[in-house]
Amino acid sequence: MKKTVITISRQFGSGGRSIGKEIAKKLGYDYYDSELVNKVAEKTGLDPTYIENAGEYAPGKSFLSYAFSSTGNSNNQLNTAGIVWKAQCDIILELAEKGNCVIVGRCADYILREREDCLNAFIFANNNYRANRIVNLYGEKDKTPEKRLEEKDAKRKVYYKFYTGRVWGDISNYHIALDSSAVGAENCVDIIADLAKKL
Amino acid sequence: MKKTVITISRQFGSGGRSIGKEIAKKLGYDYYDSELVNKVAEKTGLDPTYIENAGEYAPGKSFLSYAFSSTGNSNNQLNTAGIVWKAQCDIILELAEKGNCVIVGRCADYILREREDCLNAFIFANNNYRANRIVNLYGEKDKTPEKRLEEKDAKRKVYYKFYTGRVWGDISNYHIALDSSAVGAENCVDIIADLAKKL
Repeated sequence: MKKTVITISRQFGSGGRSIGKEIAKKLGYDYYDSELVNKVAEKTGLDPTYIENAGEYAPGKSFLSYAFSSTGNSNNQLNTAGIVWKAQCDIILELAEKGNCVIVGRCADYILREREDCLNAFIFANNNYRANRIVNLYGEKDKTPEKRLEEKDAKRKVYYKFYTGRVWGDISNYHIALDSSAVGAENCVDIIADLAKKL
Repeated sequence: MKKTVITISRQFGSGGRSIGKEIAKKLGYDYYDSELVNKVAEKTGLDPTYIENAGEYAPGKSFLSYAFSSTGNSNNQLNTAGIVWKAQCDIILELAEKGNCVIVGRCADYILREREDCLNAFIFANNNYRANRIVNLYGEKDKTPEKRLEEKDAKRKVYYKFYTGRVWGDISNYHIALDSSAVGAENCVDIIADLAKKL
């Protein structure tokens, strides 16, 4: 079945975001990444900065029992994190329904797991490559690049686990996984775009 | 750097072995899989059937302290499992030195981890696809195909962990991972062979 939706999950610093952008360009697909934040902001009336952060942090444990309690009116009980997640799911499902798009991050691989027209890709890279890339892209910070990678990976793992129950980066969640530091960003783009056309 | 050695690790039933064979054919590379068993048998003088099994089962815990003890003459202390592993490492390192080959299984990705001319691939697939494949290939058995997959996966995990200290199937061990049930065996062959030529 033709793959009209490509989801890209990626390790921080692996270049997965720009790889996704180039795939979209190559295929003439729409590209969604930070655009998603704005869409969720519009839908919820919440501040885009809050949404951006909500896409990084899983709420604390105490939130769970509060937000997903089955007693009473669930709308009133869902706090903003739950609202953001719900809006994000709705928007990603709508975008997939339209098709011909690349969606980066935001658990799209999980949200679209029932669709057979999705190609789920994971981009990762070795730590040296990632550390160099983030310093080049985002500059030096107080924390070492290694520490920044470690913290960001940990956050993505917790967020993904919280909302999907799955292990982030576990190969069984994806159809293809590429080490951009070994394969090269350009080859990643070609492989995934060509595959989407072929399937 | 040109990739003159391709290692294929694979889930049982994913078709990784025949994908490896086709890649070798396409590139005009040598192909090593069961051939490795014979080479190890020749080198050690042990029975090929024993070698074949030794590539599946990690020795029990008690073996560790015995085989790798630093006291006394280590040659005398290494039991056959240790001898097989050592011969396997030597042979795989020699084959890689000659280059232009595809090696399936046998922890080749780990044994060759210091070489920069290796492309390490992991082939996996969903359980339905694997279950159908093993029944078609190896026939029905007393155990359900699901049970057979589960047991084989578990064995490979234990074996790989024992000899490498790594988690089998963990994406960071490979440069490329492909779900043959989604991507298709033929596409897996083309993607890996083309990539090896390009790099």
